[in-house]
Amino acid sequence: MHELSVPSLFLVLAAMLVTAKLLGELAERFGQPAVLGELAGGVILGASVLGVVPTEGTGAEIIHVLAELGVVLLLFEIGLETDLKEMFRVGTASLSVAAVGVVLPFALGFAYWAFLPHSASEGSTDLVMAAVFVGATLTATSVGITARVLSDLGQMGSEEAKIIIGAAIIDDVLGLVILTVVSGMAAGASMEALGILRVLAVAVGFLVVAVLVGRFAAPRLFDQVVRMRVRYVLLVFAIAFALGLSAAASLVGSALIIGAFAAGVILSGTNQFDTIEREVRPVASIFTPIFFVSVGASVNLGLLNPAREGAAGILGVAAVLTLLAVVGKLAAGWAAPWVKFRRLVVGVGMVPRGEVGLIFADIGRRSGILDEAVFGAVLLMVMATTFVAPPGLKLLFQSSPGQTR
Amino acid sequence: MHELSVPSLFLVLAAMLVTAKLLGELAERFGQPAVLGELAGGVILGASVLGVVPTEGTGAEIIHVLAELGVVLLLFEIGLETDLKEMFRVGTASLSVAAVGVVLPFALGFAYWAFLPHSASEGSTDLVMAAVFVGATLTATSVGITARVLSDLGQMGSEEAKIIIGAAIIDDVLGLVILTVVSGMAAGASMEALGILRVLAVAVGFLVVAVLVGRFAAPRLFDQVVRMRVRYVLLVFAIAFALGLSAAASLVGSALIIGAFAAGVILSGTNQFDTIEREVRPVASIFTPIFFVSVGASVNLGLLNPAREGAAGILGVAAVLTLLAVVGKLAAGWAAPWVKFRRLVVGVGMVPRGEVGLIFADIGRRSGILDEAVFGAVLLMVMATTFVAPPGLKLLFQSSPGQTR
Repeated sequence: MHELSVPSLFLVLAAMLVTAKLLGELAERFGQPAVLGELAGGVILGASVLGVVPTEGTGAEIIHVLAELGVVLLLFEIGLETDLKEMFRVGTASLSVAAVGVVLPFALGFAYWAFLPHSASEGSTDLVMAAVFVGATLTATSVGITARVLSDLGQMGSEEAKIIIGAAIIDDVLGLVILTVVSGMAAGASMEALGILRVLAVAVGFLVVAVLVGRFAAPRLFDQVVRMRVRYVLLVFAIAFALGLSAAASLVGSALIIGAFAAGVILSGTNQFDTIEREVRPVASIFTPIFFVSVGASVNLGLLNPAREGAAGILGVAAVLTLLAVVGKLAAGWAAPWVKFRRLVVGVGMVPRGEVGLIFADIGRRSGILDEAVFGAVLLMVMATTFVAPPGLKLLFQSSPGQTR
Repeated sequence: MHELSVPSLFLVLAAMLVTAKLLGELAERFGQPAVLGELAGGVILGASVLGVVPTEGTGAEIIHVLAELGVVLLLFEIGLETDLKEMFRVGTASLSVAAVGVVLPFALGFAYWAFLPHSASEGSTDLVMAAVFVGATLTATSVGITARVLSDLGQMGSEEAKIIIGAAIIDDVLGLVILTVVSGMAAGASMEALGILRVLAVAVGFLVVAVLVGRFAAPRLFDQVVRMRVRYVLLVFAIAFALGLSAAASLVGSALIIGAFAAGVILSGTNQFDTIEREVRPVASIFTPIFFVSVGASVNLGLLNPAREGAAGILGVAAVLTLLAVVGKLAAGWAAPWVKFRRLVVGVGMVPRGEVGLIFADIGRRSGILDEAVFGAVLLMVMATTFVAPPGLKLLFQSSPGQTR
């Protein structure tokens, strides 16, 4: 452990935790969800302002792992709170919302980039490929941020929350497929329909098999675990289960957070799920702020400097992308006309791109398909959608309290 | 994050947690403390058997940081449980028992290593330094294990229990000072009498200043924190406080766990300490097994192979160290002849070295002052003393019920 200073890492973690809570509190005092403050805290601690959060080296990798633990525990918690029957009941609505929320933003982004004039693409080598990437960054939904906002607002039990969470999870599965396709394109592979279908089958298959087998086996397993006498044995087994299923999901070609969500859904069927949920919360409360502060810290504020060359063009492109991003997801709220729910709430709930959008954009940048200017514009879009949704949802829930089931 | 596979790291963590709990349970079923099983689980997952726990690279560094978080949270918890008033109120009996229980084992261990022939020290660079480390590992008393055993036996109210707990708490503070001295030596600080005094002054000074300032400021700070509305704000601030004070202790030349212990003592004086203690426990329960399993994983079982050259020597050294460890602490029961209590009960209660002994041994190993063979022997001594005390106390309390106040 030569290059790594544990004390200074502990100081960084302490700073991240305190900043997250202080700005989270400030956000709540201004009537906003706490997660908005945690993201803003990340921006302040990030490279563009204070530079407290390390961006490379072992320290950065450790914070990355802790942040991943944070998002895994968050999705695990959401899974624990998910009623599987309720999810199937709103299944068609979620599926429609997810489908429209992926297809429409992609089409809008692709069309804008491929067919309309814009000022920030001089460096792109292949217009069609760049258009695919721009479209792809618009498809993401950050289930983490949306779920945190809904939970901050005490709305996890509402009809709209169920549809949004279901749609966001489906979006994650679709996002994996898109990610595989664009990564393949970036690497120069030809993407045939069969390969795309295989990715989709693995992601869906994992979720179905894990939940089916798990709902049968987990209650029996945990009825044995609860008979053990060592301290916090339920909690430790539950978290080990979440970590194991996350890893398994990732290793078969699905995503960590899908495994974490599945683990939560599975354990919500055990007889000990009350205890598990109560004890997981304090543990998750330590890790999830690390995740949101990390997301905030990856934002480059320098792009917003008006004195910067080309800034006007980037800001213009960013504005158009943000408009398309919001319109595309809002429209998804009007999918599934046969089900009754507050459509604007669902639409706004789907808006934040969060970390998923950042991942797409980063692949595009590193492969050279998106030049720095376009990458900057995409990043601004991701930031804007992420920061706009929390206050929007808060406003909507206040103005129409609606039916809570 | 190219070289690091987050999913495989998650699998390792899951394996460490499950193994710790399963073998901890097995240990308790055999009437032993759970920590013994966690250590054994580490041995099984370590390089000498399954090789599941990584020993180098980013994965190893991340597990090291998580283990450090574990030991920091453990000492923070012990600090929280420490009643400062009780510490000052405990009679001369506790003080005498603690003093003899530190000085005598240290002297015995030092004399054995420095002056008597033994067969396992070929690799040690500096005999005196190694002798200091061997002596230091013999001084520890595990307040956690002893308190747990006394409470399991329903004897927390007995005169002997009060003396043991008081002495173990004083021992913990003395142990922390010794730890700083040996850590300083391990880091290569030249250890003249003046240097040792300086380190001692820094350790005691840090502890005194931190506790004095903290006991004044922390209640006022946390009375403000508790007015904040964001979720788990008390817990997150408390853990950030522990991380910050640990880092501060380390940065001024003291040790991480001194800061963590001080943080616990300080927060035990806040009005919110019940909530903090209740919420810290589940978080600590996830990290502390990582620490004990990591320590176990660093054991090289090959040392015990009778076919191996020098194995008999290591076992011989371990046997002598265990004998000295038991004799030194048993004799402490006969300190304070002016107070009446069952001396054998107190002596046996002071025997288990537990996690504190492991921390000393681990610092010695990582700094290269204790070579692998000596480390193995010390580890066997720690395990043997930890193993012997619980059944011994149980037997003694059963055979002479004595007066319970």
